[in-house]
Amino acid sequence: MTLTRFGSKLILAAGVVAVGTASSAMAQSMSDVQKIAKERGLTTQDLIAAAQTYTPTGMLDEYVIMSSGGHSGQVFVIGVPSMRLLRSIAVFTPEPWQGYGYGVGNEILDEGNVMGKENRWGDTHHPALSETNGDYDGEWLFINDKSNARMAVIDLRDFETKQIVKNPLFINDHGGAFVTPNTDYIFQTAQYNVPWGADYAPMSEYKESFRGAVTMWKFDRKKGRIDKSKSFAIELPPYWQDIADCGKLESDGYFFLNSINTELATGGFGVKGEKNPPFEAGVSMNATDYLHIINWKKAEKVYQAGDYTMIKDFPVISLKTAIAEGLLHLTPEPRSPHGVDVTPKGDFIVVSGKLDPHTTIYSFAKIKKAIADKNYSGRDEFGVPVLDFDAVMEAQVEVGLGPLHTQFGPDGYAYTSLFLDSAVARWTLGGVYGPLNPEPDWTLVTKTPVHYNIGHLGAAEGDTVSPDGKYLVAYNKWSVDRFVGVGPLLPQNFQLLDISKQGTDMPVIYDMPLGIGEPHYAQIIKADKLNPWSVYPEIGWDPQTQSVDPWAPRPKMERVERTGEHEVEVYMTSVRSHFTPEHVTVKQGDTVIWRITNTERAVDATHGFSIPVYNITLSLEPGETAKFEFVADVAGTFPFYCTEFCSALHLEMMGYLMVEPNE
Amino acid sequence: MTLTRFGSKLILAAGVVAVGTASSAMAQSMSDVQKIAKERGLTTQDLIAAAQTYTPTGMLDEYVIMSSGGHSGQVFVIGVPSMRLLRSIAVFTPEPWQGYGYGVGNEILDEGNVMGKENRWGDTHHPALSETNGDYDGEWLFINDKSNARMAVIDLRDFETKQIVKNPLFINDHGGAFVTPNTDYIFQTAQYNVPWGADYAPMSEYKESFRGAVTMWKFDRKKGRIDKSKSFAIELPPYWQDIADCGKLESDGYFFLNSINTELATGGFGVKGEKNPPFEAGVSMNATDYLHIINWKKAEKVYQAGDYTMIKDFPVISLKTAIAEGLLHLTPEPRSPHGVDVTPKGDFIVVSGKLDPHTTIYSFAKIKKAIADKNYSGRDEFGVPVLDFDAVMEAQVEVGLGPLHTQFGPDGYAYTSLFLDSAVARWTLGGVYGPLNPEPDWTLVTKTPVHYNIGHLGAAEGDTVSPDGKYLVAYNKWSVDRFVGVGPLLPQNFQLLDISKQGTDMPVIYDMPLGIGEPHYAQIIKADKLNPWSVYPEIGWDPQTQSVDPWAPRPKMERVERTGEHEVEVYMTSVRSHFTPEHVTVKQGDTVIWRITNTERAVDATHGFSIPVYNITLSLEPGETAKFEFVADVAGTFPFYCTEFCSALHLEMMGYLMVEPNE
Repeated sequence: MTLTRFGSKLILAAGVVAVGTASSAMAQSMSDVQKIAKERGLTTQDLIAAAQTYTPTGMLDEYVIMSSGGHSGQVFVIGVPSMRLLRSIAVFTPEPWQGYGYGVGNEILDEGNVMGKENRWGDTHHPALSETNGDYDGEWLFINDKSNARMAVIDLRDFETKQIVKNPLFINDHGGAFVTPNTDYIFQTAQYNVPWGADYAPMSEYKESFRGAVTMWKFDRKKGRIDKSKSFAIELPPYWQDIADCGKLESDGYFFLNSINTELATGGFGVKGEKNPPFEAGVSMNATDYLHIINWKKAEKVYQAGDYTMIKDFPVISLKTAIAEGLLHLTPEPRSPHGVDVTPKGDFIVVSGKLDPHTTIYSFAKIKKAIADKNYSGRDEFGVPVLDFDAVMEAQVEVGLGPLHTQFGPDGYAYTSLFLDSAVARWTLGGVYGPLNPEPDWTLVTKTPVHYNIGHLGAAEGDTVSPDGKYLVAYNKWSVDRFVGVGPLLPQNFQLLDISKQGTDMPVIYDMPLGIGEPHYAQIIKADKLNPWSVYPEIGWDPQTQSVDPWAPRPKMERVERTGEHEVEVYMTSVRSHFTPEHVTVKQGDTVIWRITNTERAVDATHGFSIPVYNITLSLEPGETAKFEFVADVAGTFPFYCTEFCSALHLEMMGYLMVEPNE
Repeated sequence: MTLTRFGSKLILAAGVVAVGTASSAMAQSMSDVQKIAKERGLTTQDLIAAAQTYTPTGMLDEYVIMSSGGHSGQVFVIGVPSMRLLRSIAVFTPEPWQGYGYGVGNEILDEGNVMGKENRWGDTHHPALSETNGDYDGEWLFINDKSNARMAVIDLRDFETKQIVKNPLFINDHGGAFVTPNTDYIFQTAQYNVPWGADYAPMSEYKESFRGAVTMWKFDRKKGRIDKSKSFAIELPPYWQDIADCGKLESDGYFFLNSINTELATGGFGVKGEKNPPFEAGVSMNATDYLHIINWKKAEKVYQAGDYTMIKDFPVISLKTAIAEGLLHLTPEPRSPHGVDVTPKGDFIVVSGKLDPHTTIYSFAKIKKAIADKNYSGRDEFGVPVLDFDAVMEAQVEVGLGPLHTQFGPDGYAYTSLFLDSAVARWTLGGVYGPLNPEPDWTLVTKTPVHYNIGHLGAAEGDTVSPDGKYLVAYNKWSVDRFVGVGPLLPQNFQLLDISKQGTDMPVIYDMPLGIGEPHYAQIIKADKLNPWSVYPEIGWDPQTQSVDPWAPRPKMERVERTGEHEVEVYMTSVRSHFTPEHVTVKQGDTVIWRITNTERAVDATHGFSIPVYNITLSLEPGETAKFEFVADVAGTFPFYCTEFCSALHLEMMGYLMVEPNE
């Protein structure tokens, strides 16, 4: 093992460097504009005029980005190359425009309650599109909540969240969502470790009581739901497991997962009597961390054979079993890695350690051989075999400072984000990819500055078995001086790069501020792979079951019906430009069960529906039916109305809920 | 009075026409692209390539749109001409990215509770920038919540919501926010009328018990808050008061407000035994509705003289007093109007009735004279004097179908949105504006098709005393086929028009989908009028008080302190890349009072802070301090962490909250 290969240009104080980088990049951004203008003999006014003249109004985008929204808890859908925000999808956070969590969708959010408590936000990090044979199929989207270790399922027929599951074993995850090449499973891995189920244990018992794990959620594509009864977990050492990727083609059946804090640091900085350094230093002491190599197909067999323990009512393959069955191997990787990315043919695994200026490329063939040969450099302190680094490493490419995440083109190029350099590096793959490009294998080709501090990046279909090239998007974390000031909370900046030409020509062609969340990772799919509905298939459609609701109100059957001494049911329809019925009278204290159907069939003919005081607001797309309930405990006169500007007479689309007071 | 002038091209079934319009406009949009390409000899690929090449990455916008977010409850800030979304501002709806309503900001949201209930969303309609001498001054932004009749105050130093007030008299408002030329008052008017305070009364008592009103919220600019103790309301007839505008210069001291449902229709369609037509028909029976002309300076004097009644603990000038004091006059206006807009010099008032193809222009000089001469055509059924229409009307311009809202340029042009035509009409003003333009006064000049169904529109500084011209934005309600499909809920479409040239040249130059809310109205301010902070002025800054918090944790003073048998206080700081202290241990059942300061001074160095289970997430901008409280009733091990990718070591910026279980 060649320790000196790592850390040759170690960053001493990343925070300071980050600020320094932003400052120098600032100067860069000013000269960019001047440079373009000068080269073309254009004034600033010319540039603006040209941009306006040539903006393709009315044209459709070729690609669509599915982006995490960070701690907004949502997903953002963005067109490429226009970089226009097409819509947000409410996932972990209630959102009234979509009518999510304000009368409808509450049961989905409640499924995600944590230890009996409502958690009405999330920290979405890594969206994963469903795949068929390793290629996006445009059907489903999955995304994790790092803050409470939850996983969500989004249906791409209507771009709505259908399910949220809470991980019963851990309370924080970063390594998710990642899918197997046919979306049999969705992976979710713990990051900041806790005792099973986030139970209490003192920090002094970290090594004994805290646990790492990866959960394999079984996805039932027919039902469109995660099937908890066929899901299980594998216990891992209490490192901070980080980002992951699933094997494909040659490496199908394997799952690759990197880690931080193999030091088992427990922090405590600033606590009286504690002598530990802060986590930022404590977790970066070792020269290397561990890449985890998991044979998930074998794990599935072990689970199906019943060789697991029930922990918190969830099947867990113990670390001991995982070792004994040969499910789990480690190998050294550059310290504090962020990305692990499998090449399109599944033959190489690219790891970037943000404290090391190289990307390190592992050969899957060599890994398989080392496993077969038991070519170990030793075992970690939990007994997991560690594959000899030199036996599995294929190449290292010095790309620059702070490499994080790698994506691929169709032409033998790889692209790595450089957080500290604020740049995107283009470099060449070797092996079968070598003949596809004119440059020598495993070589840095060029770097394009971006503004500023790029985290992840995404290339068009860039982590499938068949990347498209053409466009790459830098998901930059800071924007500093790029946009008009909007107060101390700045937008992030998605920058579009044209990667269609070979060699050093890889310009930034668009800045897109994102002032609605903190996107981390995103995937970019060809727009023509999506087959969304433009209206719901039939009138009376329940988006939660994706079928017609037999109870859906229909024209001529509208009514208000007393169904109990303290219970009233409302059957209502909405169509431009009235609700039927327009008056609903109940008694104070009644439980009101309200059903409403939008009977429109025209595309875009959405009706909103809202009731004051009771915190109710819905978005009813054409054909949709909804049901909500509340207790009418406050008496009064409450106008309900359509919140969408649905027609010239939309202001007239209203009615009154009258709650008669008790004597 | 000339009744035949109204309704000459009445829309029979607005819903059907709306669909028809969308369909024909669809064809229009396809040919648009082909036309542009053909004229310039360009292929589709050429257009895309050109758009990319000339996109001015790194350039700053000249204008900023402050847009309502409709039933998202938020405000959106958008750059012009780039049409990039710079940020959202959370107002009525909790938003975790901004850390609003998840530990911090909860008391602002609670101030907006309705009849004792949490209403955690809003329906924002009409933002109003603060003005000095009738010109935007870039300091404050106000916006209404239609759904529960609330008003919010946003500070444009940090683009954050500072106050929400609930109107005590009514439960629904549409006509707000509108400000006086020096922002002394913010107007809010009831729309769907209810008895005072939304008390219960049967619909049969509509005329007797239901009330209209306009509230004049006093704004204390020094404190940056609405001063409820100096605010009052004026009782109005129970019409549906709609959109409004404040007089300026010549008409300073007056407020103009239009109305729907002067029929006093009470609906009830679909209720057994009810014979009323649906509201959409019932409120459109009369050929005219009433423009309300309110002398607010006189009203202020009446209020200050104590001539009011306390209703629901709020001072109200009765309708009787308003009539007696000559505060309130009516005059006929085209039925079902949407916009009433005062020309830049304050000399004309433009009303658009969406069921009449004309804009109707009233002369303020004639209104004053008619009031002085008591030139009444009669009184309405509540005794309010009605000024003779012919005596106050200046001109009518036939602009097209479904005119809604009018904005102004610097060159004597007015621009009116046409909902049913899906077009923007440019027409000429007369009077002193006549010499500014080459066309005859009061004449339609051109119409530009937009896609589709435009609601409001906004011109750069277009409702100030000095409009800029240059750009106009069409706030279109439907987008139908303009963008890649994203399911049945479609984005709306803001289209940018170049209005810098005179005459018929007024092209659409950009499409901006808005898939995050339903914007209604927006104002467009020159970017250089805004003076936002890039970081908070000092470390330990409390954005709620806009001053340094003496309790703010500072470096070296961090600690966890037991302050009671069941109470613990936490003093924490955050700086790249650690929290101090990193461990917080409390006992189950403790009330935890947690203070945290971000001690950064670099622009963009925001830290997030989140705790699982307890639904806590904050966004701490550089210098900001925050305080939140919770009861640690669930025992366990809970990692807190920085949710912002703040440095290369941001993943390491974490710590543990340990809640020791009770025995």
